[in-house]
Amino acid sequence: MSGIHGGDIYNNHVKIDFSVNTNPLGVPERVKMAMHEAVGHSNQYPDIRAAKLRLAVSRMLEAPEEYLLFGNGTSELFLAIIHGIMPKKTVIPVPSFSGYEYAARAGGGEIIFYETKEEEYFAITGELYGFLPDDVDLIFLSNPNNPTGRLTDRELLRKLLGLCRDRGMYVVLDESFNGFCGKEFSMLPEVEEFENLILVRAFTKIFSIPGVRLGYLICSNRELRHTIQRQLPEWNLSCFAQAAGCACATQLEFAAIASYIVQNERCFLEKGLREMEFQVFPSEANFILFYSEKRLYEPLLERGLLIRDCSNFRGLRQGFYRVAVKTRKENKLLLKAIREII
Amino acid sequence: MSGIHGGDIYNNHVKIDFSVNTNPLGVPERVKMAMHEAVGHSNQYPDIRAAKLRLAVSRMLEAPEEYLLFGNGTSELFLAIIHGIMPKKTVIPVPSFSGYEYAARAGGGEIIFYETKEEEYFAITGELYGFLPDDVDLIFLSNPNNPTGRLTDRELLRKLLGLCRDRGMYVVLDESFNGFCGKEFSMLPEVEEFENLILVRAFTKIFSIPGVRLGYLICSNRELRHTIQRQLPEWNLSCFAQAAGCACATQLEFAAIASYIVQNERCFLEKGLREMEFQVFPSEANFILFYSEKRLYEPLLERGLLIRDCSNFRGLRQGFYRVAVKTRKENKLLLKAIREII
Repeated sequence: MSGIHGGDIYNNHVKIDFSVNTNPLGVPERVKMAMHEAVGHSNQYPDIRAAKLRLAVSRMLEAPEEYLLFGNGTSELFLAIIHGIMPKKTVIPVPSFSGYEYAARAGGGEIIFYETKEEEYFAITGELYGFLPDDVDLIFLSNPNNPTGRLTDRELLRKLLGLCRDRGMYVVLDESFNGFCGKEFSMLPEVEEFENLILVRAFTKIFSIPGVRLGYLICSNRELRHTIQRQLPEWNLSCFAQAAGCACATQLEFAAIASYIVQNERCFLEKGLREMEFQVFPSEANFILFYSEKRLYEPLLERGLLIRDCSNFRGLRQGFYRVAVKTRKENKLLLKAIREII
Repeated sequence: MSGIHGGDIYNNHVKIDFSVNTNPLGVPERVKMAMHEAVGHSNQYPDIRAAKLRLAVSRMLEAPEEYLLFGNGTSELFLAIIHGIMPKKTVIPVPSFSGYEYAARAGGGEIIFYETKEEEYFAITGELYGFLPDDVDLIFLSNPNNPTGRLTDRELLRKLLGLCRDRGMYVVLDESFNGFCGKEFSMLPEVEEFENLILVRAFTKIFSIPGVRLGYLICSNRELRHTIQRQLPEWNLSCFAQAAGCACATQLEFAAIASYIVQNERCFLEKGLREMEFQVFPSEANFILFYSEKRLYEPLLERGLLIRDCSNFRGLRQGFYRVAVKTRKENKLLLKAIREII
């Protein structure tokens, strides 16, 4: 039985979890320390303004403090964006993270799925411009995209942002996995120029803290920020999230090393998968999407290796799998196990 | 300057915080241990089903597992209730916790405030039955109420629940402070009978963990639960919340002792305040509302003691203050400081 989400280690006997896309180096020691320290503050209400965290992230991004909104994970932010904007029509290119659809459904509006093409490696192309109906309120984009690992061209995104601005459409751009491919691919510099851009990011992946729940968004549109904030619960950030986030913001060197290792290991893993003649989709993230005629999920799980069966992703089908890039030792184990199965 | 909320120790120099209503014994050691252990799980996605926590709380309450929904604090639950029901008309008796209004405003519906009477010690009385317009969708109640500490009579609540059920109105009953006054005052046994009842509870107060963010609701109405759940973010409970919650559910003896001490200390503090001829409102919770002609907030803060200035509570005015019941030593310090000021 496939899990409905990655990382479902609670219903499986798992030795190595390749289904969840976090940094293989694990949590930085400084961040662990900060969480241990936070236990001592759990008897106090967390700062409702998240002042320290706001300052730390603002400095890290070199973005104004007031542009930031924090959430109990990006999943909370997606929901608050929907509750704030209440889009009548939302466009979601697929395949992509199921959380966009989850959030959009909560708002009750219409959802239009735009299927990217397998033969184009699921790339977002200029074709999307023409596809967008005039009355769309909101588009969800992800860069690099999950589960494809695909990065969208910067100029194409700029053009799309401009077009959407002219037509009164908001763009949610999820950069949760941007930490693995480099600052130069982030649309952070565009936040000032495009008031219709809601840039969503997380510490979860690069610092490997999905258990903590912490995401943030950056937006230069004051009114829009206020609209979204009104839909977030008060005190939504735990003392652990605030402490961990502050610590993460000091660990940029760790992030750079993690990103370097992931890029190396991704090449290794991609090569290994290609050698076994799977169709491998080029990724710029810390995971790889590939297609296999032979079923892999169950036999790998029997060996204690959990991968993500992507057959339940909209726009994909039976045979698509996503594996996280992990350490050399773990990646070798995965390749060996797959080799045995096929 | 008064804080907009209790517990704002981030903008004040505070030695003892009487503004926040948590158990004066602090966090049970077992719960602290669980949070330290959870640091080791922060690199995993938390269980999206919260299976262990669900089982632990279900056993603690002797309520079916499926009746439970968990939130990142009760503030998240209030918002999800509003987003789910989207009430056109909500009734909020005041004075009460500002979070109900915050949540109701997010839904955009009309809010009708029902002012309880100072001369009746802000009690909910049968008068509320007659007050309720026919087209009300939702009522927020709190028992014991914050900031008044007032407990509503069980039979009166039962009658109200029945009336509301007959008229198609949902009742949110917030029992966040119930842990301090005893099981016999909880409407938990009524959950089965009243499908319009959404009972909200928290570990925050009795186990003193407001920094963790964990609340839950109990509701026997399956469709309603589903409607609310759809408005909650996925993975809304951190690994810390799940671990702390499981540990809290084993600490019922601690809770009983804390409740006993609070009841004793509340008498002591009430007596001390009455001796200074303040108007003291009878409380069944771990805090006391009182009225003072003389301004107390600033001079107490100068002495490092933070209390809750309640002048910004709807239905109250300048001169109302709320103090948390703390340990004998701390309560004595507070009484001494007030005596010096007046």
